[in-house]
Amino acid sequence: MKNVIVGQSGGPTAVINSSLLGVYKTAKDRGADIVYGLVHGIKGLLDRDMVDLSTQVKNDLDMDLLKRTPSSFLGSCRYKLPDIKGNESTYEEIFKILKEYEIYAFFYIGGNDSMDTIKKLSDYGEKIKSPIRFMGVPKTIDNDLAITDHTPGYGSAAKYIAATTKEIIRDGLVYDYPVVSVIELMGRNAGWLTAATALAAGEDCEGVDMIFLPERIFDLDKFLDKVGELYKQKRSVVIAVSEGVKVADGRYVCELADHVDYVDAFGHKQLAGTARFLAGKVAEKYGVKTRAIELSSLQRCAAHITSRIDVTEAFNTGGSAVKAAFEGMSGQVITLKRVSEDPYMCITESADVHFIANVEKKVPDEWINKDGTNILEPLVHYIRPLIQSEITPLWVDGLPRHLILQK
Amino acid sequence: MKNVIVGQSGGPTAVINSSLLGVYKTAKDRGADIVYGLVHGIKGLLDRDMVDLSTQVKNDLDMDLLKRTPSSFLGSCRYKLPDIKGNESTYEEIFKILKEYEIYAFFYIGGNDSMDTIKKLSDYGEKIKSPIRFMGVPKTIDNDLAITDHTPGYGSAAKYIAATTKEIIRDGLVYDYPVVSVIELMGRNAGWLTAATALAAGEDCEGVDMIFLPERIFDLDKFLDKVGELYKQKRSVVIAVSEGVKVADGRYVCELADHVDYVDAFGHKQLAGTARFLAGKVAEKYGVKTRAIELSSLQRCAAHITSRIDVTEAFNTGGSAVKAAFEGMSGQVITLKRVSEDPYMCITESADVHFIANVEKKVPDEWINKDGTNILEPLVHYIRPLIQSEITPLWVDGLPRHLILQK
Repeated sequence: MKNVIVGQSGGPTAVINSSLLGVYKTAKDRGADIVYGLVHGIKGLLDRDMVDLSTQVKNDLDMDLLKRTPSSFLGSCRYKLPDIKGNESTYEEIFKILKEYEIYAFFYIGGNDSMDTIKKLSDYGEKIKSPIRFMGVPKTIDNDLAITDHTPGYGSAAKYIAATTKEIIRDGLVYDYPVVSVIELMGRNAGWLTAATALAAGEDCEGVDMIFLPERIFDLDKFLDKVGELYKQKRSVVIAVSEGVKVADGRYVCELADHVDYVDAFGHKQLAGTARFLAGKVAEKYGVKTRAIELSSLQRCAAHITSRIDVTEAFNTGGSAVKAAFEGMSGQVITLKRVSEDPYMCITESADVHFIANVEKKVPDEWINKDGTNILEPLVHYIRPLIQSEITPLWVDGLPRHLILQK
Repeated sequence: MKNVIVGQSGGPTAVINSSLLGVYKTAKDRGADIVYGLVHGIKGLLDRDMVDLSTQVKNDLDMDLLKRTPSSFLGSCRYKLPDIKGNESTYEEIFKILKEYEIYAFFYIGGNDSMDTIKKLSDYGEKIKSPIRFMGVPKTIDNDLAITDHTPGYGSAAKYIAATTKEIIRDGLVYDYPVVSVIELMGRNAGWLTAATALAAGEDCEGVDMIFLPERIFDLDKFLDKVGELYKQKRSVVIAVSEGVKVADGRYVCELADHVDYVDAFGHKQLAGTARFLAGKVAEKYGVKTRAIELSSLQRCAAHITSRIDVTEAFNTGGSAVKAAFEGMSGQVITLKRVSEDPYMCITESADVHFIANVEKKVPDEWINKDGTNILEPLVHYIRPLIQSEITPLWVDGLPRHLILQK
């Protein structure tokens, strides 16, 4: 038997299931017997909670639906395996289960945290001289993985963000009095998603006025001064800000609020959002109408608008992981390499998981303007190809149809 | 000369420009000389700020772009004309300008507040025996206009809300621990938009668990008890709530918060959102992970996902207004009448503006369940046809292309 296992881990994306399909279809094409899907990632392995994917993806229609289904089809987890040292019994148990299911190769679709699972499993496998191959398939809307040119999931999130920002800008222009809109994007430490708002600008859109990334220290007074200048010059001011922006003393901007929204059952203070806080400060200081818009989880699950480039690359990274594993590779993560700028072309390569697991890639300093209030053209040039072309949803009764796990 | 004027007023929608196109194209087809567009509604008339629409919409491509452009192409206003009595000079001025521009008919695209403008202008016109015809074209995502079966703009907002809710529900299911998501929808007094979240439910989606409309009094304790039961039974609980829900003493739910977000320059207290407040209460009481999602202005400007039925009806109401005016009608608003349920068919009729201006239509009580925690099947049946079929954006360089006003 040549069985393989695939799991999905971490926060979902709009194309994480295209990677799942890439693994499934390529494994089947290359002669795999059973392709198991882990329900809720590595936890599904420990719980022996798996499905035979051929019972889920039964025909071409199912494949096309799976590609268009947001969020992790198999479910996800944030579970991290313990260190090998001192926890050998956990690993013995895992490898016992893998043997029981006659597993030939193991694939994990996830971000830098999830790649820690591949690292530990392949390290242990090497230690015990297991023949099982362990491969990582990159995935995250955050685009913060090392080595790879970008991550599958980012392009579709960027496309959704750019399209929505464009619509918000138009909406802000409708009245004849000034409005300051603050859009909050995901990204605790890296500003890739926030940077994507810059793509709204073009022949038919004036674009956002300022962009603040967590890579630079945020200065509230300077921010307010800039807004003060802007709203006198133009009717609608639109600002994009990352949830992760921090002031000089290291506090998140939202931590500057003088109240907490509520204290949860674990005693954690829940803070107002960054956009809400900044919009409040602007309203307080200038008496101008403001609006705070959080794109929230919509930026990772809006599969009704995905980038065809992204969907294709997500599928290809899954397929390449299978190809590499079947050719003997292990302990690696598939990466994307941009081999041509114009026309845009990316190929897949691979990198040692030790260089990717737990590493965060930030926006390079030279792609941000001097005073940290906007991004520069090379960053727009980097993102633009990733949002190209579309995958049309399969509309049923007025809504995009999804594929759901049958258990 | 047979010139006409058209203006857009109130909050924008994704299809308000289809109505503008309906007025423009039908007026031209029926022999109008110049079709003026009022920049920022009735204020544009008083400021003589108008454009000749033939200089803006020059060919078929422009028409197709205009149809796909969200937010009011001409700009909007919230300006209300003063009462005729005691302000005759304002009306004398308006009719002087209309005469100056040789206006034959005046069209105003807007909601119940905006229809007040048509009411006053036609009342004054009748008083002075002006031959000018005044017609209202209905528009609002809120769907709260009297007499008409529904309003253009609502169907596309409902489609966006239902598709997004479906994606949020899938996103909430991804982890293996409970999550309570609260989605906040627009609607101060009428729950039509919030009700549209019910459409997410179907063969591939479990739907939202509770829906709270402003038509019923909100009971915080009962809400918390219900959530307490739900999150023990199922992993992901999703609740839709209107921004306008109020408790028994008449306060908005968001006014129950024990702090204000900020006080603006006019001394108005700005409150935390309803979803945020409720999610906080759930987290505080049960220690469960919660998420508050406000669809905010996205629900009125997301033209990348519009209903073809809605776009067509928006165009038709604009066109019907011109036809009626050119046949001698005045002081009326075009309405939609559902002449067949299955298959769905609507025709246009018209109604005296006095019965529509300043009147709000709420969700009928019999379409809400007994304890006010969900809507009933007849309401779903009412909304479902309005979200059918799609208009594909015109994608340019990865983003939907819009038409912008050239001045």
